[in-house]
Amino acid sequence: MLKYQQIANEIELYIENQQMQQGEKLPVLESLIRKFDTSKSTIIKALDLLEKKGLIFQVRGSGIFVRRKKRKNYINLLSNQGFQKDLEEFNITSEVLELDICKPTEAVAQNLQIDMNQDVYYVKRIRYIEEETLCLEESYYNKAIIPYLNKEIVTESIFQYIEDGLGLKVGFSDMYMQIGKLTEQEANYLKLKNSEPKLIMESIFYLTNGTPFDYSMVTYNYNQSQFYILGTGI
Amino acid sequence: MLKYQQIANEIELYIENQQMQQGEKLPVLESLIRKFDTSKSTIIKALDLLEKKGLIFQVRGSGIFVRRKKRKNYINLLSNQGFQKDLEEFNITSEVLELDICKPTEAVAQNLQIDMNQDVYYVKRIRYIEEETLCLEESYYNKAIIPYLNKEIVTESIFQYIEDGLGLKVGFSDMYMQIGKLTEQEANYLKLKNSEPKLIMESIFYLTNGTPFDYSMVTYNYNQSQFYILGTGI
Repeated sequence: MLKYQQIANEIELYIENQQMQQGEKLPVLESLIRKFDTSKSTIIKALDLLEKKGLIFQVRGSGIFVRRKKRKNYINLLSNQGFQKDLEEFNITSEVLELDICKPTEAVAQNLQIDMNQDVYYVKRIRYIEEETLCLEESYYNKAIIPYLNKEIVTESIFQYIEDGLGLKVGFSDMYMQIGKLTEQEANYLKLKNSEPKLIMESIFYLTNGTPFDYSMVTYNYNQSQFYILGTGI
Repeated sequence: MLKYQQIANEIELYIENQQMQQGEKLPVLESLIRKFDTSKSTIIKALDLLEKKGLIFQVRGSGIFVRRKKRKNYINLLSNQGFQKDLEEFNITSEVLELDICKPTEAVAQNLQIDMNQDVYYVKRIRYIEEETLCLEESYYNKAIIPYLNKEIVTESIFQYIEDGLGLKVGFSDMYMQIGKLTEQEANYLKLKNSEPKLIMESIFYLTNGTPFDYSMVTYNYNQSQFYILGTGI
């Protein structure tokens, strides 16, 4: 973790520990520079990161102010950290339905930018929240990048294994969302009725070097899923 | 518009004009500094803005690369610019159902951080895409900030009026999303059937100084709405 990321984490902790509210003012730039005994540019990078995460907003000539997510139990759509952090009060579990090595379909190959004769890991699992179905997830991992997965890994957090176990850095993602009606099969998996509402989230995850490594389709149970985005105004 | 924003726009235009593809490399920092005849810090700010918008990614020690949104006709969830830009190939129109000055409900007052005896503009409209219903929108504007609205303004882009007409700057937003089933009344407005899927997007929009000015609830026609997010990895 880089210096400015560490400082961003410390400021985030400070906001939480002080139970600062939306609109409350943080110490001025000069105080932060002294407090963290670092350069102006490092503090500015830390503040930019916090702004990007939706935790503060900066008003030119006026100061740095706190933003607080006001609703609990909503899933952060912009986080690559998975549900765990947003839903930490709940018991989130995974049931692995399939874990195979196979060849990609054309769509999968295209999204992962690989040839159709390359291998991919296919993982199909149901995620549960407090024993209710949360979503059905189908993911394809480029095996040239993720050479090994087993049932234990995919029952837990795959991304944590990728970062901690393989030492890879997850960079950014493209996400596509659509609303529709459940097919009979999806309804069975999610223990819902045929034709009930669904949200489908298609994501392509890239490493920091721009290589796509994961293409996933997640179908959410409409009863259990609510999302938030702290937009930063672009 | 600030210098770095201008330069960001020019780089964006350059990417489009050169029809650069995902993964293509942009000129190195030093060339950009020379090309735009500006300081290193201005170029860095311009690149950070483009990264935040999901148009480029930067790889430490390797360079600056292009990201391209690959699907057309999806709505950018992170943009405060409204649909128009994403759906520019389509004819988007608004039918104004109601435009009133009234007192806020408790929820509206709380979201707009005002007292319940203050006035708000209430706007209810249906947006159409190529004559099909796209969404039903109910918005509340703090009248102390948006002192005047009329039917012509709310038929067109309200945000454009706020920025160009009132000279206010839209800053950031909190968004909350849920999936559900249409009520009979919502179904009538959207020309769909009772209990069909809906996506509800609740947003609070803030000025750059952190003051909330608009609280809106938008119910989308599931047949017409698809969204994308270019996540930046936080």
